[in-house]
Amino acid sequence: MQAELLTIGDEILIGQIINTNAVWMAKELNSIGVSIKQITSVSDDKNHIKKALDEALGRADIVLITGGLGPTKDDITKTTLCDYFNVGLKKEEKVVEFIKENFVKRGIEFLQVHEQQALILENSELLFNHNGTAPGMWIEHLGKIIICMPGVPFEMKGIMTRYVLPQLNAKFSLPFIIHKTLVTIGIPESTLADRISEVEDGLPQHIKLAYLPNFGLVRLRLSGIGTDENALRTEIETYASQLLAIIPPANTAATDDLKPEEIIGQLLSHSKQTLAIAESCTGGYISHLITTVPGSSEYFIGSLIAYSYPIKINNLGVKAETLEHYGAVSEECVREMVEGIKDKFKADFAISTTGIAGPGGATPDKPVGMVWIAVAGPKGIVARKIMANGERINIIERTSLMALDMLRREILGY
Amino acid sequence: MQAELLTIGDEILIGQIINTNAVWMAKELNSIGVSIKQITSVSDDKNHIKKALDEALGRADIVLITGGLGPTKDDITKTTLCDYFNVGLKKEEKVVEFIKENFVKRGIEFLQVHEQQALILENSELLFNHNGTAPGMWIEHLGKIIICMPGVPFEMKGIMTRYVLPQLNAKFSLPFIIHKTLVTIGIPESTLADRISEVEDGLPQHIKLAYLPNFGLVRLRLSGIGTDENALRTEIETYASQLLAIIPPANTAATDDLKPEEIIGQLLSHSKQTLAIAESCTGGYISHLITTVPGSSEYFIGSLIAYSYPIKINNLGVKAETLEHYGAVSEECVREMVEGIKDKFKADFAISTTGIAGPGGATPDKPVGMVWIAVAGPKGIVARKIMANGERINIIERTSLMALDMLRREILGY
Repeated sequence: MQAELLTIGDEILIGQIINTNAVWMAKELNSIGVSIKQITSVSDDKNHIKKALDEALGRADIVLITGGLGPTKDDITKTTLCDYFNVGLKKEEKVVEFIKENFVKRGIEFLQVHEQQALILENSELLFNHNGTAPGMWIEHLGKIIICMPGVPFEMKGIMTRYVLPQLNAKFSLPFIIHKTLVTIGIPESTLADRISEVEDGLPQHIKLAYLPNFGLVRLRLSGIGTDENALRTEIETYASQLLAIIPPANTAATDDLKPEEIIGQLLSHSKQTLAIAESCTGGYISHLITTVPGSSEYFIGSLIAYSYPIKINNLGVKAETLEHYGAVSEECVREMVEGIKDKFKADFAISTTGIAGPGGATPDKPVGMVWIAVAGPKGIVARKIMANGERINIIERTSLMALDMLRREILGY
Repeated sequence: MQAELLTIGDEILIGQIINTNAVWMAKELNSIGVSIKQITSVSDDKNHIKKALDEALGRADIVLITGGLGPTKDDITKTTLCDYFNVGLKKEEKVVEFIKENFVKRGIEFLQVHEQQALILENSELLFNHNGTAPGMWIEHLGKIIICMPGVPFEMKGIMTRYVLPQLNAKFSLPFIIHKTLVTIGIPESTLADRISEVEDGLPQHIKLAYLPNFGLVRLRLSGIGTDENALRTEIETYASQLLAIIPPANTAATDDLKPEEIIGQLLSHSKQTLAIAESCTGGYISHLITTVPGSSEYFIGSLIAYSYPIKINNLGVKAETLEHYGAVSEECVREMVEGIKDKFKADFAISTTGIAGPGGATPDKPVGMVWIAVAGPKGIVARKIMANGERINIIERTSLMALDMLRREILGY
């Protein structure tokens, strides 16, 4: 079963917002056995929308449309679809009532314009939106399914989870799509490809291998499709084991599609050890990553974001002489920071970072991107200098990723 | 001048990665007067790629392709384009030398497979990749331009900035595209639309108004196109002023497309005041947002991420009785946290957060999404309870946005 995603709205085409809906929808649809053939973003232009829908229906069985359902003049999805299917609109009283109630609760006046939100296409079935005023629609047309949802992520997700995914699942007998990802670190993509080429060449038609490189990590993804879930899973696990026999353990960051912070979470939960962090140039990003993981309060004690000298001195115990002689961006400082936070927060492991995230603050011997990272654990302190490329946000991200990998190695004893 | 973006790779279609390249490319192309007609993501499938390229060339003057240029077997962009244009490959010695040098520096063995990276299409001009091994290509074909780049964001950005944007700029006389965004907060989209409908109806053909709602913010974007840059800018500013005359100042978060953390940055830089933060449930995310802004070290002193009781008590001065009687998620605790961080870090303003980000940790009277936020400033402390919807990451984001807006109002005295 193949689907396409069609996103409507200029905001994506002028680069104002990132299409995060697509990634979420693709993942969810994949998990119920629907593969995505194409993702298309078009502008708020009637003819273009109609043409794109026509092309999508020519390739796929299901087309999911998001965006352009709001109450304002730039929202033209409904009128365009009326044109396309040559139908009118019908009012859903259930939706009118829901909007009214909601507005009363929030003390907002109910206006004529709000009632228009309750109109849906005559040839559609209502997909109730519990999180907003624009209802979703399910349309069946010449053997194909067209699903229309608002573009606000939270509203789209509600409609997908509550109605679209269960209804697709009930309607079709879908195959199983299984992905298995290994996360490797420290081996360049091409070298990795060379080493595992024999396994890759031996893969059957229905299992594909993909390489996803980013920031020094290369994810290897095995994707298989089949009708027997267990047989397919076993087959994919066998190929994964063959790959793992080739890649050294120190270079295998995870055997699941885990983010680095999830890897750390699993390791610390398992060993019942704790973590504290002292961040300067990363400004809280490592702590944020760690705390996005549910249950992180089990092993994460807390952090100090020490952006100024006095905080480094008074709250972390960095010596004033250290800052004076070596500066904040130095091995001496990063070591005192990591020692300070580990002691003060009584943690088993600690991370510290200090560097020049830019664009300002550089000196001839300390350029933008120069960062010191330290990790402290039961076996002592490891400190490392890196030169991170890119803009401020890239430097923050790269440093954070590197720090999490240093911690992983320290926990595992590599 | 119209362009299309064509992204190649299964990783986007199965929801493994977000297409962040598209947003960046669209923004940059827009800034030199190139509008984007469509963004398309297709899989690593030869026929599908050729068909999508054909369709894109039918609609636009320029097609920018990213992805599938790596050295591994799943990378088929080059062979597909050879087929499409019916040409072979040529080797770029400059690229071979660059890869060799780079590998020697990093102590990696140079393999045969790496030399293939230096092959580009016979009918293309080299776009040198200073950040990686896969070169970009510039192809002119039947009056259209096809640009091909690697999908790794950092590499694509380097090639775009260094070659693609300047070359497009030099080749064409492009019109001016100007966007002006007003950020409103606290007025529902439909109510806002109703209030400003007269201004909207009076807009000329070449200026469009768009509404971008998210998390309680509604961005209003005026977009104009024209040949006289100054006249267009003046015209857009005039309509923006008309909108600002209708929207109350307290509901106007920014008169530029600024993120909340950038708004805070401008306010604090201007008033030469400082900020400190005590985060519990937001886990460092507010600090991260604040420190993504260049120059934030001017006004941001630091934060304490107090994820555990002992840190709240020992490092923030929250009373043990408070935690015992009211719990960490309480008005009493959030007030003591904000007072503690403001005093200890000697800041003019402070923020504190404490709540249940979930999925665990909820109790009958403290459900997932219940969060207390406090802001302290020269005029005292304001504390507020919110019920945030969504998953862990959404609760963290919503809380952070709300906290930044409370701080904005406190600084401005609303």
